[in-house]
Formats: sequence, structure tokens, C-alpha cells
Amino acid sequence: MPENTRILLKRQSEGVPVADDFETTTAAMPSPEDGELLCETIYLSLDPYLRGKISGRHLSGAIRPGDLMAGEAISRVVESRSPDYAEGDIVAAHTGWQAYSTPKAAELRRIDPSIGPLSTFLGILGMPGLTAYAGLLRLGEPTADETLLVSAASGAVGSMVGQIAMIKGCRAIGIAGAAEKCAWVKDVAQFDDCVSYKTGDLRAELDAACPDGIDLYFDNVGGDTLQAAMERLRLGARVVLCGLMAQYNTTEMPPGPNPAWIIKARATVRGMVVYDHEDLRDAFTDDVSRWLAEGRIHYLEDRTQGLENAAAAFSRLMRGGNVGKVIVEVGEE
Amino acid sequence: MPENTRILLKRQSEGVPVADDFETTTAAMPSPEDGELLCETIYLSLDPYLRGKISGRHLSGAIRPGDLMAGEAISRVVESRSPDYAEGDIVAAHTGWQAYSTPKAAELRRIDPSIGPLSTFLGILGMPGLTAYAGLLRLGEPTADETLLVSAASGAVGSMVGQIAMIKGCRAIGIAGAAEKCAWVKDVAQFDDCVSYKTGDLRAELDAACPDGIDLYFDNVGGDTLQAAMERLRLGARVVLCGLMAQYNTTEMPPGPNPAWIIKARATVRGMVVYDHEDLRDAFTDDVSRWLAEGRIHYLEDRTQGLENAAAAFSRLMRGGNVGKVIVEVGEE
Repeated sequence: MPENTRILLKRQSEGVPVADDFETTTAAMPSPEDGELLCETIYLSLDPYLRGKISGRHLSGAIRPGDLMAGEAISRVVESRSPDYAEGDIVAAHTGWQAYSTPKAAELRRIDPSIGPLSTFLGILGMPGLTAYAGLLRLGEPTADETLLVSAASGAVGSMVGQIAMIKGCRAIGIAGAAEKCAWVKDVAQFDDCVSYKTGDLRAELDAACPDGIDLYFDNVGGDTLQAAMERLRLGARVVLCGLMAQYNTTEMPPGPNPAWIIKARATVRGMVVYDHEDLRDAFTDDVSRWLAEGRIHYLEDRTQGLENAAAAFSRLMRGGNVGKVIVEVGEE
Repeated sequence: MPENTRILLKRQSEGVPVADDFETTTAAMPSPEDGELLCETIYLSLDPYLRGKISGRHLSGAIRPGDLMAGEAISRVVESRSPDYAEGDIVAAHTGWQAYSTPKAAELRRIDPSIGPLSTFLGILGMPGLTAYAGLLRLGEPTADETLLVSAASGAVGSMVGQIAMIKGCRAIGIAGAAEKCAWVKDVAQFDDCVSYKTGDLRAELDAACPDGIDLYFDNVGGDTLQAAMERLRLGARVVLCGLMAQYNTTEMPPGPNPAWIIKARATVRGMVVYDHEDLRDAFTDDVSRWLAEGRIHYLEDRTQGLENAAAAFSRLMRGGNVGKVIVEVGEE
């Protein structure tokens, strides 16, 4: 009899999660009730926000020891007990770190495989893409010829922020860590420039890349990178606060930039949570699928084979060792 | 022959300025050139932003040792060499800490004494009033039934912020220091409540006064008061950063609140500088003079007699020892 592989949280450790904080278990193959579907996971998405759920401080709820690890996945319908879906349909849902799941039909998002590769529905056509699209266009309000700076620029959100900003006529400058990330941002995603926070002097490099200052800063990391950007805001600048990678693995809340930087630039700083922007989903899907077909959007994936390796991949993501959107290949396409 | 009394900055000391940092001098009575006027100072305004000018870090420019101390004043025209003004006209201008001045006609703002007492053109009908009006209505976007919190609530800006917010249908909660300031805010300005940052536990008092959190925080102080407010923002809150009294007398820039508070509330934080809002001047004057005539606006003045006592009054303002808008009575009305 076939079994289901499921990965549970074993313990809520402090600091960067390690593979040993998770536990692989097998369970009986689940059976869908009326209104549910049996789904086979194809791709599992690993994202920074999962760290907040493990700490119990993410607004979407906590993951506790013994719980199935959460996460969004692209799956194939194996058996449908809903009139809305048929065997073979491709769906996205928050089904977690498991090979098979039985979500309710109402919890699914239908995927149209004709508009992009399946894994992109976890990246540029998924939650990270919508985050970038809504955060940049609705909260950042870019206008042509402005200078946009974005941190974690080779990541799933950051790379889209810069590319959409360039489509809107902005100069896009990225911040990333490793040299290979910066190279991808410049050479493939074709940002105007990308500076590293790891090599040399971030402030001097920002001054060189943004000699007239920053009109729009899209922040995915917080910490000293946010501070350095705030020091360089132009009059009327906008700052979109989207992620805090610099503090996800800490238990304290370190202080932030002095408010004088915001006053001095008469800046507008907005907090971004993607769940607020579901109303932009259709416009986002239309725009990004068109840009993708036109060859104007590039994306980078960091793929891991096998659900059993998900924990190690997550630990690597938390250390910033991933290069691009982290995808776990769980089943066959 | 009559002489002019002028107060100069003697030294740029660190910390809270003391009277000995200033120097009273006498000079020959100035004589207006073509296009200028000889003005007799009636009321001089002392404002917190002057501390930033002494430190050399205010955007309107520095005051250096040996310079005349800057400041806005209400004056009477004694002699006019401009076709636009006549002897006896009342004007406002940044003429500084002196008994007589010779501003250019283009630098003046004409005062209509029929719409309010002369000193109010330095307070509720002047720069602090416009700061409150523009900062609250344009940047804060209050709507009826929201909870507004404002720091330095008995001050020139803070007291107007709360009263205008109540006119717009908000609940207004103030933060002030001394008991007599809190009493004025509650009993005279009729805020819904006023908590002290000096007595007891600010966070517990804020929780009691704002049990459902804060929709709009208008900050005049920064520091821990800003931090405490940020911890209590409701979803969609707005924060207007207007002043940083907590750090004007320091040379460091202390850190600010962690950005997670802004993300959590999906808040919008805006930096306020009054010079950007001159286009609202006419609407502001119309509204506030009408509210004043209707008895809906109360104001508190902290008056000092004699230009020779301006330095001591400024030092007291910097220590938070003033109660209300600081006005120096220099000449007869």
C-alpha cells in the first residue's frame, strides 16, 4: 500500500534552523472527502516567511513542534471529489512539506500551464511575484527615470522588483551578497548595477551606484542595509518595507533607522504584506505572463531534488546560501 | 540716538543650550534701503527647530557663533521704503532676535489683526498651526471615529493637531510631561485623554487610553515615545514624523523603532517639513480663524517679557520647561 512522506517540525530552535530541527515521517496515503482532492506534490516552495511561522510571530499563524511544515506547492490532481477539478489538473495550494495532500477545492488556485513553466507559479508568477508587483507598483509608485534600489536582488521578490521597475522606466540598482548573485543581477536580469553588502564598503558602493540618491527603496532585509539606504533617500522618496531577512533568525528586535532620515527626505515609508493585494492578482498574472513571453523577465531558481532534502535546503536559504528562488522537486512534472 | 538690541549666538555648545551661550549686543539703529522697511519687533517666537540651526543640521541653514539668533517675529512697520507697506502695518518675518530690523518687502507676510490676536500669528495661525494643519490633514488623512495620538500635546503644534483632529471627528489622545500640561490638554483643549510620559508606565497608560490601538500617530518627539506608539499601531495606521525633541540636544543619532512594527500594521510613515505645504496657507488661515471665532480652538502661551530674557526662555523650552507656545514680548502691541 502506498504511503505518504511528510516532514514535521521537530523543535523550534533559536538561530538559523538546521536539518535536524525537522523530522521525516511516513503516513498512510490520505483519502479525500467530499469537496476535497487527492493531490500529488510536484514542486514545493521554500520562502523566508516560514521562519516567522516557526518562531510563532508570522501573521499567518505558527508552526509548532509536531506540526506538518507549511509551504505552498504546485500539485497535480490525482483524484477529485469536487465538480470544479478533474484528474490531471494542476493546482497551487498551501499543502505543506508532503508528497500527497487532500486540500479542499476552495483552498486551491488553478494553474494555467500555458502561460509559464510550472515552477514559476511559486516564483515570478506566484506569491513572490505578486509581492514584487503590488509592493513596487501600488506602494512604491515608481515613475520613469527614478532610481530604484532593492535588496536581496537575486531573490524571488527582489529580482522581480528590479525588472518591473526597469519596464516602468526606472534605473534599477540591486544589493546582493555573493559575487555570483551580483553577476546574475547585472548580466542576466540586466539591472543597471548591483552592489554587494559583503565585499568592501556598502556605503561607498551605494554612493557610486546612486550618485544622486535613491528615489525608491524596496527592502527585503532590514538591518544595516536598510540604514544605509535611508541615509541616501532623495526628497520625496518612497520606502517599501517588505522583508526582514537580517532579523528572521534572531529572537531580539534590533532597533531601526533614526526617524530623522525620513523627515529629512520627506519620505513615505510603507509596510507591505502580500495578502492585502489579492485584488491585483489578475492584472499581475496578465502583465507578468506577457512580459515573460516577451523575454523581458528573467528568473533564477535554486532547485533541490527530493522532499527528504527540503530541510537542508531551507537551512541554506536561511543562511543566504541559495541562489534564486528555492524550489524543491518533489514529484514528476 | 536710539540703538538696536540684538542677541547673537556666542557658542555652539553641546547639550541643552544655556543663557550664557548667547550674547546681547547693541548696534546703531538700522536704516532701510529702497524696497526695505524699518520694523519694530512686537513678539518673537522661540521654536524647537532653532536648536537644529545652532547644531548646523537644520535644512533652513545654520546659525554660527557671532550670527544674529534667528527666529520669526511679528513686527510693526515704522518706516516703509516699499509701495506695498505703510507705517503702522503689522507683518511677520524671520527677522531674528532683535528689537528692530530692516527686512525686504518680499520677505514679509502681511498680518490681518482682525482675525486673531497678534501673538497667534506665531502659534495657531502661524508656522506651528500650519505644521499641524498640513501634517494632520494632508499627511495623516484622518477619518471620523479614528483614534489619534499626538506627543508634545500641550505644545504649539501638538495642541492644534489634537483639536483639528477632534473637529474632523477623531478621538484625540495626547502625550505630555508635567501634570499641569496634561491637565490643560484634557480640561481646556478638551482632548479625550492625555497621558504623561513622566509619571508611571507610559505603555500601560497608552493601553488604557487607546485600548483598540492607534490609527494615526503624530510625533513631535521621537525616542521611546515614538517606539511606544509604533508598538500600538492598528492595521492601516498612519504616522506623521514632525519633530524629534528627544534628540535635538544630542550629538548622536539614536536608533529608531524596528521596521517590523511598520510591516505588521501595514502602516504608512511620512516625514513632515512645513515648508512643503505653503500652498495650504490660505485654506489653513480661513479654517483656523473660523474655528477660533467659533470657540473651537484653544491655545496656551508661555510668555517672557523682554528680549534680554529670550536666551533663558529658549533654554527652558529646550528642557521642556515651557507650558505652551513660547513667545517673547519685545515691544508694545
